[in-house]
Parts: sequence; C-alpha cells; structure tokens
Amino acid sequence: MPPLRLHAQVNPASMQAGAFNAALWDRLRAETVGEGLAASHSTDPAGFDAALAEAEALFLVGPAPLHDLPRRAPRLRWISYSSAGVEWLLKAGLPASVTLTNASGTHIPKAAEYSLAAVLMLNNFIPALVTAQREHRWAPRSGGTVAGKTVLILGMGALGGAAAEALAAQGMVVLGNSQSGRPHPAVAEMSQGDGFRAQLPRADFLIIALPLTPATNGLVGREALDLLPPHAGVVNIGRGEILDADALAAKLRDGTLGGAVLDALPTEPLPADSPLWDTPNLIITPHCGLYDPGAYAERCLRAFFANVARFRAGEALHQVVGLDRGY
Amino acid sequence: MPPLRLHAQVNPASMQAGAFNAALWDRLRAETVGEGLAASHSTDPAGFDAALAEAEALFLVGPAPLHDLPRRAPRLRWISYSSAGVEWLLKAGLPASVTLTNASGTHIPKAAEYSLAAVLMLNNFIPALVTAQREHRWAPRSGGTVAGKTVLILGMGALGGAAAEALAAQGMVVLGNSQSGRPHPAVAEMSQGDGFRAQLPRADFLIIALPLTPATNGLVGREALDLLPPHAGVVNIGRGEILDADALAAKLRDGTLGGAVLDALPTEPLPADSPLWDTPNLIITPHCGLYDPGAYAERCLRAFFANVARFRAGEALHQVVGLDRGY
Ligand SMILES: NC(=O)c1ccc[n+]([C@@H]2O[C@H](COP(=O)([O-])OP(=O)(O)OC[C@H]3O[C@@H](n4cnc5c(N)ncnc54)[C@H](OP(=O)(O)O)[C@@H]3O)[C@@H](O)[C@H]2O)c1
Ligand SMILES: NC(=O)c1ccc[n+]([C@@H]2O[C@H](COP(=O)([O-])OP(=O)(O)OC[C@H]3O[C@@H](n4cnc5c(N)ncnc54)[C@H](OP(=O)(O)O)[C@@H]3O)[C@@H](O)[C@H]2O)c1
Repeated sequence: MPPLRLHAQVNPASMQAGAFNAALWDRLRAETVGEGLAASHSTDPAGFDAALAEAEALFLVGPAPLHDLPRRAPRLRWISYSSAGVEWLLKAGLPASVTLTNASGTHIPKAAEYSLAAVLMLNNFIPALVTAQREHRWAPRSGGTVAGKTVLILGMGALGGAAAEALAAQGMVVLGNSQSGRPHPAVAEMSQGDGFRAQLPRADFLIIALPLTPATNGLVGREALDLLPPHAGVVNIGRGEILDADALAAKLRDGTLGGAVLDALPTEPLPADSPLWDTPNLIITPHCGLYDPGAYAERCLRAFFANVARFRAGEALHQVVGLDRGY
Repeated sequence: MPPLRLHAQVNPASMQAGAFNAALWDRLRAETVGEGLAASHSTDPAGFDAALAEAEALFLVGPAPLHDLPRRAPRLRWISYSSAGVEWLLKAGLPASVTLTNASGTHIPKAAEYSLAAVLMLNNFIPALVTAQREHRWAPRSGGTVAGKTVLILGMGALGGAAAEALAAQGMVVLGNSQSGRPHPAVAEMSQGDGFRAQLPRADFLIIALPLTPATNGLVGREALDLLPPHAGVVNIGRGEILDADALAAKLRDGTLGGAVLDALPTEPLPADSPLWDTPNLIITPHCGLYDPGAYAERCLRAFFANVARFRAGEALHQVVGLDRGY
C-alpha cells in the first residue's frame, strides 16, 4: 500500500498558527500514527498549489484558497479543519468526493468554563455593575444564586452539551434545543427546531451555541428576544450572525433585557466605531473565551491523527460535517 | 419562668431593613420558638431607649447607639447582629456581661457563588477585557481552565470555607490560611497567621475572606502583593481595610498583577472621585455580591431563633463573637 499523502497548511495570519507548528505536528504524528505516511507541514502560502496536487488528505489551520479543487487537487478525498465553525469552507463549495471534518469537541473544557462564567456574571449583575463603574456610580445589585434558575441552550452539540453539564452541576434547570431534539442527560426538556420559542419565556438565561447555517442566520432576532423575560441574560458563543446584535443592544439600552455576554460578534474584529462597545450591561470577549492556547492544538491534532488511523483502516471518520446540513 | 424580653431594632437606613420586616419576624418567631416570649420589633429609632431598658436580648439590623449600656440596658445579656462583620459593635465597647453573636454562615451560598464567579472572571481575563472594551479595543486574551491552578484563601471561616469548596469542585488546588491553621477537607495545605506569606508566590488567585480586626487591618499591603506572581488575580470579600487598595491599583496599572475583583472597598460608598473606579483590570461590585435579598433575612432569623431556644434552655449559643479576638 503506498503511503497516504497528508499535508498540513497553516495560514500564518490565524490566531492558532503558532500553536500548530511543525514540531508539534511531527511529534504527535510520530506518537500516534507513526510511520507509513507521506506527511508535510507548511506555513508558506506559496507552496500550497504544489502540495494540493499530491495530497489525499489536507489539514487546514485558518483559511486557504479552495476554488477549483477537482482540477487543482485531483487526489483529494478529505479536508480536516482546525476549528469547529466551517461556514467559509462550505461557501467555497467542496466537491462531493471530499469528506470534511472539523474540530468540534476540542473546545469542550473551555466551553464549559466560559458558559459557567458568563451565566454567573449575568446572575451577579456584573455587566450592569461594570456599566455603573464606568460612570463612578455606587449602585449595588443583589440577587439569589443560580441554583433552581433556568437556562435555555440553543445548539446541544459539543459546546451546548459542555455548557449544559457545567450549569446543571450548579443546580440549574437546563432546557435545550437542537435540530433533532435528541435527549441529553443534563437537560430537563429538549425542543426541536422552532420549538425553542415556547421555551424562551421561561429562560432566566439564554446561551446560543449554534453553528452558522442558512437556518440559524438571524435566528435570534427582535421577535425571539422579546419572548425572553425582561431580567434575562443572553450569552453568544456560536456565531455573531445568529443573533441580531442591534436588537439586543436596543433592548439592553431600554432595560427590557438584563444583560449580555458576547464572545461571537456580528463583525470580527469589531470596528472601533461600533456602538456595541458602549452598550450598557453588555460585556464583550473578543472571540477568545473558548480558546486554550496551551492545550487546543495538541487536543485537536490528537483527534485528527485518530481520524487518520480510521481513514487508513477504511473506517468511518469522526467529526464529519454534513455538507447538506451545514455543520 | 417570666417570658424572655426580646427586642428587634431595625435601622431603616440599612440595606437589609425591608427584608427584616415585622411580618417575617413574627412569622418565624411563631414557627420556631412559639409562645412564651415578650418579643417586640421596631424600625423607629425614637423608641430604642425604652426598649433597651427592658430587653434581655437584642436583635440588631444595622447600626444603633450602644454607648453606656450598663446604665441604659441593665438587663441586657445578649446582642445578636444581622451581619457577619461586627467591627463597629466591638468599637462600641460592649460590657463583658453581654454575649455578642453575628450572622456568620448566612452568606454561605452566595459566598460560594461569588468566589467562583470572581475566580472564573479573573481566569478568563474579564477585568482586562472590560478595560479594553471601554477603549473600543479588540484585544483577545485566552488561557487554560482553572483546573489544576492554585487559589489561596485568607480566612477559612464561613466565607472562606464556602469558597474553598466551590473552587476545589472545579479541580483547583486550594491553599488556606487562618488564625488556628485548622485543617479543612477542601484545602490541600493550611497555614497559620503570617504563614500565608510563604504561600503567596504559588497563588494564581488570592481571596481575602478575613474579618477586620487589629491584626488584619492593612495585612495585605504592597509587600504581600509583591509576593504574588505577576499574573495573579486578587479578590476581596472581607473588608476593604484589610487590603491596601492604592498598592493594588498601582500594581494593576503597571501590569505587575493580573486583575482584581473587589466587593469590599476602602471607603463605602466609594466616592465618585476615587481613582479606583477607573483602575485598569479591576472590577468593583459595591458590597452587594454576597447578599441574597430573597433568602438572607429568613436564613438569618432562623439561625437567630435557634439560638433563642438555646438561650432559654441555658445552652451555649452558636455564632458567638470572641470580644477579645475580634471576630
Ligand atoms: N466562540 C468560539 O470560539 C467558538 C468555538 C467553537 C465553536 N464555535 C461555534 O459554535 C458552533 C457549534 O459548535 P459545536 O462544536 O457545539 O457544534 P456541533 O457539535 O456540531 O453541534 C451543533 C448543534 O447545533 C444544533 N443545530 C444545528 N442547526 C440547528 C438549527 N437550525 N436549530 C436548532 N439546532 C441546530 C445541532 O443539532 P443536532 O444535535 O440535532 O445535530 C447540534 O446540537 C460552531 O459551528 C462554531 O461556529 C465558536
Ligand atoms: N462582602 C460581604 O458582603 C461580606 C459578607 C459577610 C462577611 N463579610 C466579611 O467577611 C468576614 C469573614 O466572615 P466569616 O463569616 O467567614 O467569618 P468567620 O466564620 O468568623 O471566619 C473568620 C476566619 O478568619 C480567620 N482569621 C481571623 N483573624 C485572622 C488572622 N489575623 N489571620 C488569619 N486568619 C484569621 C479565622 O481563623 P480561625 O478559623 O482560626 O478562627 C476564620 O477562619 C466578616 O467578618 C465580614 O467582615 C463580608
């Protein structure tokens, strides 16, 4: 059997570029799949076309030019991407002969911690107290603990599941929503598709952990936000386009929502003149809350090389993205 | 046996005044100790001297004039205070014949949640990100989860113990310090008195949960803060006077500390012109983080009436403050 031709292309502009370096790539390849691979690693965009011409499997860190793949990459059967969100790859229009996998699952420990931190911040009025602090106002706000309060999680995949477990462990009532409505052990009540609207009025906190797809784009707009109780707190760890940030900001300004913590923003980086920066009762974490620089790349590559072993053995890959469903 | 003369005096200026109302007082007294008490409740300062003249036991919400007690309150044997911090009562100079009890323990659920929230905020760079947000700067900061990191807790009473349990449950290594150095099941290593200085260099996070006494006043000054690693985060849920806030602010400004979350401030309310408001990487919660308006008064009064039963039975009271040790 000829060696599998495997190529890693690292976009040097990616925040993850340094972590996915050649030394880690080589060490983990040796530790996991060992010999019998023709594996290369490059951070240089110039050699990408030559690598594509030979590659059967491609590991991508950050965006790369993927137009016209049938011609440029005739042997390509698999692309693995080092992030969970793959919307740009799907827009590139992959040939049906190429399987796409992503890094869903790699963020689990940080997704759990960030979700817990965000809900505890909202429950303890931190966004409102930070707004008061800017204005030098001593304005105490106190409330009960999160135990017994209700959180609704949209998207019950790797991120949503991690959030559900962390919040259920604090005694919270967790409501969940997904495409399938599949039950989850930490979730008291699952809904499916549009069924989340009936759950919104009961949510003290809403966490958006959805992928960006045509179906989720703009899903949480003014109408959905108006179904939340006015004290509710909103968290977005999915993608900015899913939440209407202008509608959210308007409700935070007029006091018909309690607060918000956003890791995913409508434009990234958020422009300096965006009114979101100064929106009261809103805390922005610039798409950094779920990334663990010391652990992410190794965890991601170990999952990838486990897939390489499956690929060589002709077994089904894990973390496969449905090109039709979009995640 | 003549009925015990019990009087509750509620200072209407106290944040807790509304919660400790006569209806709750009467209901819980009836439910717990029942009849056989001569119990009164007042929010009117004018009648305080007449009540004092008769009272054997006094329940206080907020400050009251306590000068010259042997003459004004000849029958008084017990004062119970509705907060944990009693420094103003000790300054008033109580007669040795009067036992003082406090509300230590009543804050436990909120102390656990606030400590967890504060450490998660620091671990996720929220104070720094909030500072960047004020300046409209997209400045991502990412790090690992709290699991395996070290938190040092000064004061291992009701507050410190609650914090230790909440943080150990996240997989953190908890170091503790108290007067006695008594072991605690959630704490990996206890120190005693000044022994905390040897623990400071290992602390990723420091939580101050001490009472204000002559020994703790100014205890965490520049010298102690300089022993922390430069990435460390500081939390104060004890009393403002224990921490040198100017030294803390100087270190936050020059980047030799990671961040801080303060519930206890050097002056309360903090004056509008205090430079603390604008200190980078500092979040202020105006002494509201540990109060639960929906649960505090009932939990406190139930503990108090359990003490009333002990008092009538001639048993030792709980929550007794050592007039000599100051907490
Ligand atoms: N902030 C960050 O740094 C960060 C980090 C990682 C990921 N993300 C974003 O978060 C997204 C989710 O990540 P993940 O790893 O949790 O993905 P995942 O494991 O694929 O889970 C996606 C979940 O969303 C549900 N879903 C999809 N479309 C839906 C719809 N129209 N209505 C209701 N539910 C729907 C799915 O339902 P089923 O269970 O029925 O399939 C599934 O539960 C990623 O796509 C990425 O954009 C952001
Ligand atoms: N932010 C708020 O809203 C809020 C709410 C409640 C309380 N507080 C403040 O927090 C303080 C602590 O409350 P608590 O209920 O936890 O009190 P507590 O149960 O009496 O515990 C006090 C702890 O501090 C230790 N300690 C006292 N002096 C010390 C010293 N010089 N060096 C080292 N350790 C010392 C004690 O040691 P031992 O165990 O050896 O006796 C004990 O562990 C209160 O006094 C109050 O000022 C603030």
